[in-house]
Amino acid sequence: MRIYLDCIPCFVRQALEASKMATRNKNKQEKVLKKVLSEIGKTSLKNKIPSDIAHKVHRIIRKMTGNNDPYKKLKDQCNRKALRMYPDLKQKVAGSKDRLLTATKLAIAGNIIDFGPGSEFNLEKTIEEVLVQDFAINHFNRLREALQKSEKIVYLGDNAGEIVFDRILLEELKDKEITFVVKGGPIINDATVEDAKFAGIDKIAEIKTISNGEPGTGPKRNSKEFTNFLKSADVVISKGQGNYEALSEVNANIFFLLKVKCPTIAGDIGVKIGGIVVKQSC
Amino acid sequence: MRIYLDCIPCFVRQALEASKMATRNKNKQEKVLKKVLSEIGKTSLKNKIPSDIAHKVHRIIRKMTGNNDPYKKLKDQCNRKALRMYPDLKQKVAGSKDRLLTATKLAIAGNIIDFGPGSEFNLEKTIEEVLVQDFAINHFNRLREALQKSEKIVYLGDNAGEIVFDRILLEELKDKEITFVVKGGPIINDATVEDAKFAGIDKIAEIKTISNGEPGTGPKRNSKEFTNFLKSADVVISKGQGNYEALSEVNANIFFLLKVKCPTIAGDIGVKIGGIVVKQSC
Repeated sequence: MRIYLDCIPCFVRQALEASKMATRNKNKQEKVLKKVLSEIGKTSLKNKIPSDIAHKVHRIIRKMTGNNDPYKKLKDQCNRKALRMYPDLKQKVAGSKDRLLTATKLAIAGNIIDFGPGSEFNLEKTIEEVLVQDFAINHFNRLREALQKSEKIVYLGDNAGEIVFDRILLEELKDKEITFVVKGGPIINDATVEDAKFAGIDKIAEIKTISNGEPGTGPKRNSKEFTNFLKSADVVISKGQGNYEALSEVNANIFFLLKVKCPTIAGDIGVKIGGIVVKQSC
Repeated sequence: MRIYLDCIPCFVRQALEASKMATRNKNKQEKVLKKVLSEIGKTSLKNKIPSDIAHKVHRIIRKMTGNNDPYKKLKDQCNRKALRMYPDLKQKVAGSKDRLLTATKLAIAGNIIDFGPGSEFNLEKTIEEVLVQDFAINHFNRLREALQKSEKIVYLGDNAGEIVFDRILLEELKDKEITFVVKGGPIINDATVEDAKFAGIDKIAEIKTISNGEPGTGPKRNSKEFTNFLKSADVVISKGQGNYEALSEVNANIFFLLKVKCPTIAGDIGVKIGGIVVKQSC
């Protein structure tokens, strides 16, 4: 998905939120915000995807505040909260008529833990809603079929905390060879290797990283290197808006699992805010 | 009220909304938005009030798009809608136990017609709510008393459409010498001389203008010239957030009438969003 002009005010809001988390020094917050404005002001949006700008914005924040991981505390809280819910989530799957469907829905419910589009959400309420909610785009049967025939699965994680919900779905795919992809360094509340380990995912999948915008953190999500890797998988499960934005036009067997949280994605994918999606690419 | 960092993302959103109203050319919208970002990026916020930035932003939009009044159509719609409601509003006042209180509440309800903080509101619902709502800050009795003793009143209007609701209150003050203040040129959906005439306010008050950020449109709202004029009045009635932002620290007998619509004002004035306020200055 190309970047829309509507993404810009959202990045500016996100930059202010992140600066406040990175430092209490209001002068520094102002300097950071103004630097972000100046940088976006001189960046061409042509052929850009939203994360190109996000990388730029959060790099400025890290550099100027010296805080490499402003969302660390929030991420830890989300991881711990989700792990406390893990036994209940497992019971929901065990007690359901269709384990794969329930696990898929729980993975989508967990996608509400996202500090990109805003900072308010109710996880418990979302879980209950999503479990009885119809998919706004429903390629779930295709996903089930593709998974049955697959050996090699790539699973693109999204946020800290949410990855505990991903683990619930991953545990339903135990006989497969799974690679779980996280960011090679911190950006917003995106899951990192540390988070994946904390959630216990390293025990059931191989962990691979993609770039957070800093050199040495992995290939860019929409790079040839990484999209070729996705094409080598039988099935790719892609969680959340950021992965959809970056990969919606990539020619691989990708199933996008997400909860729609922003009006721009809503418009692009054709689903109302709050809608839940299992959408096969291409 | 000084400008807060939280005002900046809001201005960026407002700039995009205004650009879209000013032109359908997406390239131009992008150029305008990026120019706004660059300009705010290099503007010191020290000793600034929010309208200093708003003036800058909307001047860029007018200049770059060649559209001097992007909100014209919306303002006309709001004026006409409010005028259609006028007879009903008059009946509400006539049928009430306390005419001045009802007229004051209606004037505050009309303050929901504001395309600054966002573009969605329900006017009819707001009127019914405000009429039974308690003031979050209640200096209404002081206002009543001040008005009884006053001869010379200055009334600072806010938005097009809303000024029809102001007329309802002005008509309860018929024996006074009233000056009604509007913008000397267009900015967002703020009322101008044209709107005041359309609403029939020129027949009950003298019209005076303050600057919309363009030269020759009147004195700046927080200039010495204008604040001295306010001090010369017995009572000043100030409508809306913008006037509060500009004049909250001015030493005149100002009563701020407004509906709280943004989190920054809410924090500054100590009232939740949605709250209605009659607040005497100083």
